[in-house]
Amino acid sequence: MKPKLHGYWRSSASYRVRIALALKGIEYDYVPVHLLRDGGEQKSARYQQLNPAQLVPTLEIANTANGETLCLNQSLAIIEYLDAIYPAVRLIPADPAQAAVVRMLALDMAADLQPVTNLRVLQALTTDFALPETAKGEWIKLWVTRTFAAFEQRLQRYAGHYCYGDHVTLADVCLVPQVYNAKRFGVDLTPYPNLQRVIANLEALPALQMAAPEAQVDANS
Amino acid sequence: MKPKLHGYWRSSASYRVRIALALKGIEYDYVPVHLLRDGGEQKSARYQQLNPAQLVPTLEIANTANGETLCLNQSLAIIEYLDAIYPAVRLIPADPAQAAVVRMLALDMAADLQPVTNLRVLQALTTDFALPETAKGEWIKLWVTRTFAAFEQRLQRYAGHYCYGDHVTLADVCLVPQVYNAKRFGVDLTPYPNLQRVIANLEALPALQMAAPEAQVDANS
Repeated sequence: MKPKLHGYWRSSASYRVRIALALKGIEYDYVPVHLLRDGGEQKSARYQQLNPAQLVPTLEIANTANGETLCLNQSLAIIEYLDAIYPAVRLIPADPAQAAVVRMLALDMAADLQPVTNLRVLQALTTDFALPETAKGEWIKLWVTRTFAAFEQRLQRYAGHYCYGDHVTLADVCLVPQVYNAKRFGVDLTPYPNLQRVIANLEALPALQMAAPEAQVDANS
Repeated sequence: MKPKLHGYWRSSASYRVRIALALKGIEYDYVPVHLLRDGGEQKSARYQQLNPAQLVPTLEIANTANGETLCLNQSLAIIEYLDAIYPAVRLIPADPAQAAVVRMLALDMAADLQPVTNLRVLQALTTDFALPETAKGEWIKLWVTRTFAAFEQRLQRYAGHYCYGDHVTLADVCLVPQVYNAKRFGVDLTPYPNLQRVIANLEALPALQMAAPEAQVDANS
């Protein structure tokens, strides 16, 4: 059975899992879950059977230990699992201290930035708290600029060709979707030269191009 | 050298690291970083040397591979490191599929809930977006109730005495501080009987009591 990824082209967390699958060369089926159509397909009873949190992505994948189907949410938990069962291309170093730094850089994006700027939070600002539509862009810029300023300092210390040395890691997997979003909302990236250099190196990789939002079957749908 | 934890009594992410250290029986020095005093000690030049993101916690700890001092932020990266170098009490199962489910449950709290409800986000709502003070409590209740409703369903599937079976895991480490915060903001927990049962089991553990916010030297400071 091929893994089945339930995701959305513009979801950062779905994008992360696509990057990890592509870097590892894992074939999978992609099932689009449209986050806006019909009030959001992630809220359907059918999708909630897969993931009661009504968030994407969810990955259905064989448990290599017993052949049962695992149904996993949370992109970082998914990628850690992929790294354990497909270790030929490692995204998390084997050395615990190096792994700690890579996870730390990844979480700077995946815990400090993405959750605060995702679709449901932006929707809550305008629907539940009656802020104007323009608040969404301001909100995103506030958190992107704070997070990228700190991340630029970490890159000065840890980056080589990529975020952590010269191998693609989980840190890069988490950075790419946040930079994609930042560009989409018109954030100026010139204050972050290391980040721009790393992103240019990542964008040159075929796996990253395969995983890009615009390359998905549900792009612009 | 003992590990040195820079944290704040009420910070959820600091609380997680204290729980992990206490469960593993690791002695450490605790350095309070007051998040409110003088505009926030985490914004001081001195603290930014440790962590440019101006967030707690930061852990200084020996790299067992070479004796150098590692300076780690991101509570989950820290706890993964502690789990690798002090494996006598494991918080993440060795089996990859079990580990995936534990990380998934942990991230439901650490990625979906905590980042959206932390201090700097609450401050931004009122200072940068001019919402009234009462919006803070409403904001917290919105995200806590959505997240706990989904988590209750996951507990029905995975919980035993604790969140995942009958051993304390990273999922419990991440749940406890979010329940502490929910109670502090008056969220009604009666819709979540599995969550309440697991929390009662966790609160009975001496390590959890040692790690509690009120047991810290900077409590109520």
